Amino acid sequence: MLKLDFHPAGRHFLQIPGPSPVPDRILRAVSYPTIDHRGPEFGALGLQVLSGIKKIFKTEQPVVIYPASGTGAWEAALTNTLSPGDHVVMYETGHFATLWKKMAEALGLKTEFLGLPGIEGWRRGVQAQMIEERLRQDTTHQIKAVCVVHNETSTGVTSNIAAVRQAIDAAGHPALLMVDTISGLASADYRHDEWGVDVTVSGSQKGLMLPPGISFNAVSQKAIAASKTAKLPKAFWGWEDIIAMNATGYWPYTPSTNLLFGLAEALDMIMGEGLDNTFARHQRLADACRQAVKAWGLEIQCVDTEAYSPVLTGVMMPEGIDADAVRKIIYQNFDMSLGAGLGKMKGKMFRIGHLGEANDLTLMATLTGCEMGLQLAGVKLAGSGVQAAMTALMRNKSPERMVA
Amino acid sequence: MLKLDFHPAGRHFLQIPGPSPVPDRILRAVSYPTIDHRGPEFGALGLQVLSGIKKIFKTEQPVVIYPASGTGAWEAALTNTLSPGDHVVMYETGHFATLWKKMAEALGLKTEFLGLPGIEGWRRGVQAQMIEERLRQDTTHQIKAVCVVHNETSTGVTSNIAAVRQAIDAAGHPALLMVDTISGLASADYRHDEWGVDVTVSGSQKGLMLPPGISFNAVSQKAIAASKTAKLPKAFWGWEDIIAMNATGYWPYTPSTNLLFGLAEALDMIMGEGLDNTFARHQRLADACRQAVKAWGLEIQCVDTEAYSPVLTGVMMPEGIDADAVRKIIYQNFDMSLGAGLGKMKGKMFRIGHLGEANDLTLMATLTGCEMGLQLAGVKLAGSGVQAAMTALMRNKSPERMVA
Amino acid sequence: MLKLDFHPAGRHFLQIPGPSPVPDRILRAVSYPTIDHRGPEFGALGLQVLSGIKKIFKTEQPVVIYPASGTGAWEAALTNTLSPGDHVVMYETGHFATLWKKMAEALGLKTEFLGLPGIEGWRRGVQAQMIEERLRQDTTHQIKAVCVVHNETSTGVTSNIAAVRQAIDAAGHPALLMVDTISGLASADYRHDEWGVDVTVSGSQKGLMLPPGISFNAVSQKAIAASKTAKLPKAFWGWEDIIAMNATGYWPYTPSTNLLFGLAEALDMIMGEGLDNTFARHQRLADACRQAVKAWGLEIQCVDTEAYSPVLTGVMMPEGIDADAVRKIIYQNFDMSLGAGLGKMKGKMFRIGHLGEANDLTLMATLTGCEMGLQLAGVKLAGSGVQAAMTALMRNKSPERMVA
Amino acid sequence: MLKLDFHPAGRHFLQIPGPSPVPDRILRAVSYPTIDHRGPEFGALGLQVLSGIKKIFKTEQPVVIYPASGTGAWEAALTNTLSPGDHVVMYETGHFATLWKKMAEALGLKTEFLGLPGIEGWRRGVQAQMIEERLRQDTTHQIKAVCVVHNETSTGVTSNIAAVRQAIDAAGHPALLMVDTISGLASADYRHDEWGVDVTVSGSQKGLMLPPGISFNAVSQKAIAASKTAKLPKAFWGWEDIIAMNATGYWPYTPSTNLLFGLAEALDMIMGEGLDNTFARHQRLADACRQAVKAWGLEIQCVDTEAYSPVLTGVMMPEGIDADAVRKIIYQNFDMSLGAGLGKMKGKMFRIGHLGEANDLTLMATLTGCEMGLQLAGVKLAGSGVQAAMTALMRNKSPERMVA
Repeated sequence: MLKLDFHPAGRHFLQIPGPSPVPDRILRAVSYPTIDHRGPEFGALGLQVLSGIKKIFKTEQPVVIYPASGTGAWEAALTNTLSPGDHVVMYETGHFATLWKKMAEALGLKTEFLGLPGIEGWRRGVQAQMIEERLRQDTTHQIKAVCVVHNETSTGVTSNIAAVRQAIDAAGHPALLMVDTISGLASADYRHDEWGVDVTVSGSQKGLMLPPGISFNAVSQKAIAASKTAKLPKAFWGWEDIIAMNATGYWPYTPSTNLLFGLAEALDMIMGEGLDNTFARHQRLADACRQAVKAWGLEIQCVDTEAYSPVLTGVMMPEGIDADAVRKIIYQNFDMSLGAGLGKMKGKMFRIGHLGEANDLTLMATLTGCEMGLQLAGVKLAGSGVQAAMTALMRNKSPERMVA
Repeated sequence: MLKLDFHPAGRHFLQIPGPSPVPDRILRAVSYPTIDHRGPEFGALGLQVLSGIKKIFKTEQPVVIYPASGTGAWEAALTNTLSPGDHVVMYETGHFATLWKKMAEALGLKTEFLGLPGIEGWRRGVQAQMIEERLRQDTTHQIKAVCVVHNETSTGVTSNIAAVRQAIDAAGHPALLMVDTISGLASADYRHDEWGVDVTVSGSQKGLMLPPGISFNAVSQKAIAASKTAKLPKAFWGWEDIIAMNATGYWPYTPSTNLLFGLAEALDMIMGEGLDNTFARHQRLADACRQAVKAWGLEIQCVDTEAYSPVLTGVMMPEGIDADAVRKIIYQNFDMSLGAGLGKMKGKMFRIGHLGEANDLTLMATLTGCEMGLQLAGVKLAGSGVQAAMTALMRNKSPERMVA
Repeated sequence: MLKLDFHPAGRHFLQIPGPSPVPDRILRAVSYPTIDHRGPEFGALGLQVLSGIKKIFKTEQPVVIYPASGTGAWEAALTNTLSPGDHVVMYETGHFATLWKKMAEALGLKTEFLGLPGIEGWRRGVQAQMIEERLRQDTTHQIKAVCVVHNETSTGVTSNIAAVRQAIDAAGHPALLMVDTISGLASADYRHDEWGVDVTVSGSQKGLMLPPGISFNAVSQKAIAASKTAKLPKAFWGWEDIIAMNATGYWPYTPSTNLLFGLAEALDMIMGEGLDNTFARHQRLADACRQAVKAWGLEIQCVDTEAYSPVLTGVMMPEGIDADAVRKIIYQNFDMSLGAGLGKMKGKMFRIGHLGEANDLTLMATLTGCEMGLQLAGVKLAGSGVQAAMTALMRNKSPERMVA
Repeated sequence: MLKLDFHPAGRHFLQIPGPSPVPDRILRAVSYPTIDHRGPEFGALGLQVLSGIKKIFKTEQPVVIYPASGTGAWEAALTNTLSPGDHVVMYETGHFATLWKKMAEALGLKTEFLGLPGIEGWRRGVQAQMIEERLRQDTTHQIKAVCVVHNETSTGVTSNIAAVRQAIDAAGHPALLMVDTISGLASADYRHDEWGVDVTVSGSQKGLMLPPGISFNAVSQKAIAASKTAKLPKAFWGWEDIIAMNATGYWPYTPSTNLLFGLAEALDMIMGEGLDNTFARHQRLADACRQAVKAWGLEIQCVDTEAYSPVLTGVMMPEGIDADAVRKIIYQNFDMSLGAGLGKMKGKMFRIGHLGEANDLTLMATLTGCEMGLQLAGVKLAGSGVQAAMTALMRNKSPERMVA
């Protein structure tokens, strides 16, 4: 029997920006006995989750669900729509945008990375006018796709996808628009259809509050048309067979049945709260978290107030402080996991997740753990972030408020 | 399908002094398929838990496990050892001592309630010298039993049981000593054998971190001897048949199999942490909680610093504040359950549980919820209890500390 | 970590007449995090299960739910309604009727046991005319209660409770009618109100498909009236406080919260199937089981075809065969638990449970295990019970049948 | 809340050749709270499962675990080792061999399908001499890989992989040997190292008794060497980064954490039984199943007695009987799922799974359901398969046998 908890007692606080804490209801659903993925009960389940997930993406077009974790859905977006040597423009918002670009290169695509210099691009969202300018130059339409990250998990910056859509349209360019909202979906407002996205990539272990293991491609008719002629080899990731069989609730190969049980439960929970309520809750918690960081006198990774992420907050360390050492102190003393700085930000910041199964007191537990850990690590704090966060959370509260 | 969570999202904080939060490991163990309580697997389980529970009570004598919640174990202690009309001396430490006394009367015993006047007795532990004095007067040994509560769940006061034992011995009185440690067991140090307790009563849903539903009588040889002649009618609660069948790991009637699965897991967890470590953790969290209450400028129910409970802290409200209204505000706004003031303290205080599956951050979440809720309720606070608790928790911490 | 399965692989078959196999849905429900039994969510749960359980008893009167296993509910029925020395007539249908009688004596009641001589009474249901005759003799109404077992778990005989009611009425006698349907409820038709039962006793681990740990008293107004003057000491079992607090969904002391989660799920499942469908399914499986026993050339414990139990079947062994040795062979070779012969039938028969979470194939697995085990034990079989049971199950089946 | 069970009561029998029934221990393990896949607890878990899974493959070389279902592991085997246009020889043992070939073509490989004509090849194992002959012809070593299926899930035929290795060696050919044992692993003896397999492909939802969602590539040093120069595009499936990070127990992208919890538990269970005991149990159950089919007078799909699968048995229908109609009757009447005939065998046979969490009584339940269903469907049976299977199972049993 595996001992999973290295701490003696009490609840672990999983405050990384995904996997997020999985609610008990979902864990119980995931543990229901596996059923025959060719039987009638599965068909009913399949239709239910395929229909329900569309509401989360705000799309009426197909959403492909892969029995694979999120990185696979990145690959699926590219291999279904592109051919070897195709030129794609990507935008450097952070570590995950960089990884997606590396993947595109590994798959034989010609990539071009737009972005601001140094870490400046890692502190702001996508600069849509840079995309527009680049596309205007491409008069022969060599660029086949524009790939951007909606919510950069490595930085806590949320980009304006509607603006990217407008930029492409303004340039009159036919490139596909592909968006990664792996960590944004179901936490930050997202509108696949309204924003004219061709492929949206997402995963299960963030706003959907599931364990990792399934991932998504929401597609447009334009993307499907592109897939008919795209030449990158594909089999497991191929949309065509999956979408065809999904019509009756099934998959061409074995789906991840137990995570689909969990997805059905997650959809019930999210729709039970109401998507807009879910988004508002995330914004409120994220704001309180930022008030804490400011009160500590520390810098927030994101410098564009319009681009603050409702999902996570990146906290930059002062000169001379190793963010990973701070995280380790917090993990060891307070049984809490925080996200590490990645890539260009390695050791320079840590990330606080406040997504999914999150409420006022889980956030406050998180911030008290950070405040104590920062002090143990010798970081001079300007003031109490915990107090600032409480003040923020109490706004709009009243003694008469009924939550239920 | 029952909807159990009236709040939209995030984890409920169950900070009442029991039932305490049940760890995931125990919930999973409780959900294993029920087995034949007459089969060999059950016998192995029975022997394991019957042996393991003795370590928690610090006894080498039998511990009877009832498939009934804790109130039943009170009844069992009385009906096994006493006869109709027997005189028992009980001590008023609070609401649960009072309920136990009412039960004794309902069962046909003649009760006598010692204690300090008004709510004074509800703010201090058992005054052992009052027991000694009373027993000295009883030269004809009409008093058959002395009943006290070790950890008063209604007040957060822990009495000195060794002192009660000494008082009885000093009086040279043969009365049985019966102790309720329903909410103390496995959180506060308890020594059935060393303290010469004749019957110790406890339950599952506190320090043992189980759901409610099973309860305990740890007995002495003297108590067993008394049971041979005791005349109160008893059947379900009768020790004799249970102790006899327990020798091979079985029960005379159907035990609560699934909670025994949980008990086996709980014993593994507690012994894995180490009983002394468990006690020290409770003391540390309780101290931090009290620092918070003091910083708020509020009174702690317990006024005897030697009697502070490691399990829960009673927080008294200023004049004019309805503690139940405060609790309701906290429940509605912060999805946290606190304990109500009971009996003489109804509406005058609330109780914070910090027992069982508890650690620094669950305590801090609790205290932030209290601090915000008190402010919403219009309670004037002298200062930040949250800050005071963080200061307390950081003592003895160091950046190098490894917890596990 | 406890190892609960002594067999290397595959599913254990728990075919004792209770605890019956607990469905996965119920096990998951039981493992939901424990909640505050004084909070609003609990109140909603309490009202839901208190209302739902009445439908199972077919009563509109209160049903008391105890956080204690079934034996406790026996005690509750007696202590709430009777006074020391009261005369009760009980009827010997088997081992559990005998145990109930012993309990009544232990509680200080004067018992009288009606019944047929030897094991004859253990092979037939209650002979209602014997009760009528006895009551007619009691012209001064010394007899305060008549206690019978509806479904004798030790024999597989189901008595006619309506006939007992008629017998009491025919005698014009005011005695209370108390019925144990611990193993009958939710498997065999039962009508608390229509049959004029005053106290019905039941438990969770049989037809309700829950783990053991909660039990029931369905009461009549006459029983409640009797409880006002009854003098047996009672506290934990007292109806009055429980019924009063149940009005808002709560209990005077800590209920078995997690088993109530399970009860809510069980009620959903049973009402989802439909009570009458549930009863018909039990009858069908019981009939197939009996066809198997007959084909083996073995005797069924019950000799009255009107009294066959839909819950379990008692299988008598030929002279010279130790039924417990047969059970052990089956347990060791086929990982199946069967019920032992009890009391007068010890070693002479075994009991096959076919209740609760049971269907055609779980019954057939059971019967193949029995048939192979009997052969291994050297029992000469007249023919294949397995074949006979399949023939019985196939009656009324057709290729077109849709179950869903 | 999804209703997953279309039948009113009792346990579903999932007797398809995978997903196989998931044991309760594994379902509980899968439902543990998701942890940080970058934290120390995950590293310990990673090392544990990566080490343990090697014992199941009987290899000391790396085993790559993908957070994707089995079809993905097919793709991984090909894309890691081959380049566009590479010539691969595959062998047609059935439907899954055919699907793997189609995948190879979709990925841009040049495939060649060896095999016996018509359905003859679907009733026997790989004819190793055909491979040897083909490789001898390939004097310029254009063939880069030989791909065979160890246990054909569509037919119930297990091929001799040692013989294939010998054939390749006899031909002195350098082609890689790739083997699919998705449904064989942990049920049929398999020896990755001893048999000189270069890539073994497997999945979680068969002998490992997990839900679907993770899959495996066991690799050889020769395969790793090939991967350095292979030109098929790969990213998600790339071995290099995964193997490098696995050294410390981590993955380059998000793994399927909760299924890895389940894998740890599965490895404990299998090693607890002992691999050889597991294999023997499968052989014994498979033999009993075949005795049943023979007694019914039906044909077993596999006609080579050396190639009978221990995992599943294919049952051919007489002329004029639609196997899918039989399966539907069984599903509707007996709540049991059987495997359909696939590809060339569609409608002509069904498949009985007897793998993983299987024992004597689950097999007997399965066979009684088949026997009754066949009769309902109007299939004339020569005799009772159920009797024949019981006879087979009772061989080597004795009354003294202790299983535990």
